[in-house]
Amino acid sequence: MYINAIAHYVPSEDVANEYFERNGLTDEWIFQRTGIRNRKKASQEENTNTMAYQAIDQALEILPYPINEVDLIIGATYSPFDTVGTLSHYIQQKYQIDDAVALTVSSACSSFVNAVEIVEGYFATNKATKALIIASEHNTAYSNDLDPISGHLWGDGASVLFLSKERIGEDDAKILEVYTRGHGNIGKGPKGVCLRPRNGGIVMPHGKDVFINAIHYMTKATFTVLERHNLSPQDIKYLIPHQANARIINNVLRNLDLPPEKGVMNIENLGNTGCASTPIALSQIYDQLESNDYSVITVFGGGYSSGAVLIRKC
Amino acid sequence: MYINAIAHYVPSEDVANEYFERNGLTDEWIFQRTGIRNRKKASQEENTNTMAYQAIDQALEILPYPINEVDLIIGATYSPFDTVGTLSHYIQQKYQIDDAVALTVSSACSSFVNAVEIVEGYFATNKATKALIIASEHNTAYSNDLDPISGHLWGDGASVLFLSKERIGEDDAKILEVYTRGHGNIGKGPKGVCLRPRNGGIVMPHGKDVFINAIHYMTKATFTVLERHNLSPQDIKYLIPHQANARIINNVLRNLDLPPEKGVMNIENLGNTGCASTPIALSQIYDQLESNDYSVITVFGGGYSSGAVLIRKC
Repeated sequence: MYINAIAHYVPSEDVANEYFERNGLTDEWIFQRTGIRNRKKASQEENTNTMAYQAIDQALEILPYPINEVDLIIGATYSPFDTVGTLSHYIQQKYQIDDAVALTVSSACSSFVNAVEIVEGYFATNKATKALIIASEHNTAYSNDLDPISGHLWGDGASVLFLSKERIGEDDAKILEVYTRGHGNIGKGPKGVCLRPRNGGIVMPHGKDVFINAIHYMTKATFTVLERHNLSPQDIKYLIPHQANARIINNVLRNLDLPPEKGVMNIENLGNTGCASTPIALSQIYDQLESNDYSVITVFGGGYSSGAVLIRKC
Repeated sequence: MYINAIAHYVPSEDVANEYFERNGLTDEWIFQRTGIRNRKKASQEENTNTMAYQAIDQALEILPYPINEVDLIIGATYSPFDTVGTLSHYIQQKYQIDDAVALTVSSACSSFVNAVEIVEGYFATNKATKALIIASEHNTAYSNDLDPISGHLWGDGASVLFLSKERIGEDDAKILEVYTRGHGNIGKGPKGVCLRPRNGGIVMPHGKDVFINAIHYMTKATFTVLERHNLSPQDIKYLIPHQANARIINNVLRNLDLPPEKGVMNIENLGNTGCASTPIALSQIYDQLESNDYSVITVFGGGYSSGAVLIRKC
């Protein structure tokens, strides 16, 4: 499958580390432990859906076909505005996309990669030929910024990818491989990071367990997609890791024997934007990709969950 | 793909129509308009996940292989306990299912049928060979029983299906066809039924719009899966419709020219159990299916969304 267009949106409001001095945390303490200096916060008028519209409106400027040719709409989010009228259905309404499959998926911060794998399945059965994946997280709607353990980690944002079964444009990128795994059975599993809508918001009671497993499984997922194509980490131009913590990313780069400049990071300015973090990062560097450049997206998230996507620019 | 095992669970606590006299509603008024006399309510100790365990424990008594052979776990719910450590990940932890894909999907009351279609895709790409779909709804955690418009509609429950790519048992049923569509672009779309975790719970501000579209699209989805196999409604033993309202079901049966006894109903005793309603109903009549009997599941849900599954007992 091929990426035909990609775009992202982050809200305009900045929340700098200084805001969290109320929790007894300093700018340097937060930055050293997480790599975060700033995060973006949706306004009162914004939510998971409106951020998605902003990203899609950006993509429409470069999309090489009318949006109503899309026949598969997948929302990816763990911070939904509505779980019945889901993100995908709001997109279908907003852009009047008739005759499409629509669903919304969560596997925490891995949701975007799971969405890519679902698209792969629909393309394999010929039940869809053009897909829209919209990853959008409204973390600040569910996080408690007075939580000294994880309140300072989260940011808001959205990113959209338009995918086709067959190549459409000269500038398309080919998705060569996608891999996902659930890891509910390892470590603290689904209790490592929680978002219980009826029992508090986002909390991360087991940060160390997340940290250790994220490094292991993001490394493993990267090797998995590369080895299936007889590639090594040195063949890739960019590693696009989930943006949960700069120290996790640096450890993964070290495990892959990759220099820091090959790792794409937006966490310093955006915080952890959940499952939107890797498609936002891909969108940010997309114009730097040249023909035959390989990139790998690698993720680890609550659940636990992991996955990777191998991409080659056409 | 084949159904290898199916089971369901509903909580023990009954909430009869008399409970809703506090909203100015009588037993007869509710029954005439909805077909509901009673619904089941999860206890304080229960939630979306624990009901799922109960259903799975039932299925394990008949499952012809160890549960850890499952390589794809799909949760289906719009009433999640946790959106980060999702239903599928809790199942993976509880039953120690290693090396499996895990994700949770929502397309409202159509989520179960969308999950079946996702399994179809994973089987097509050979990325999975044995799948577990767990549909579980904890409606009473999100509904307001003092809401006179829709508070009396909802019940709790869960159902599990184990599916394999190849036939495993003599008693398997074959899924011949699955079809889904989003309908965010018609009528009130995602505003017809809402569950906004950060802004109230389940509400149904546009019941009439839901009613009309449910009849139309449940009929259409049924014809779609039948026509793809050159079958007519008269060829099926059971129609298993989403249990939102007995009058919707009766209208669909009439549109299909089917007698009432061909429509499976559990709404009188269980209320609307969301996306779990059709797999619960299938589980309830599963032992009555004989070799070569056809059944059709047909659903309509918030979003809007619709879908159907054509099943033939082996």
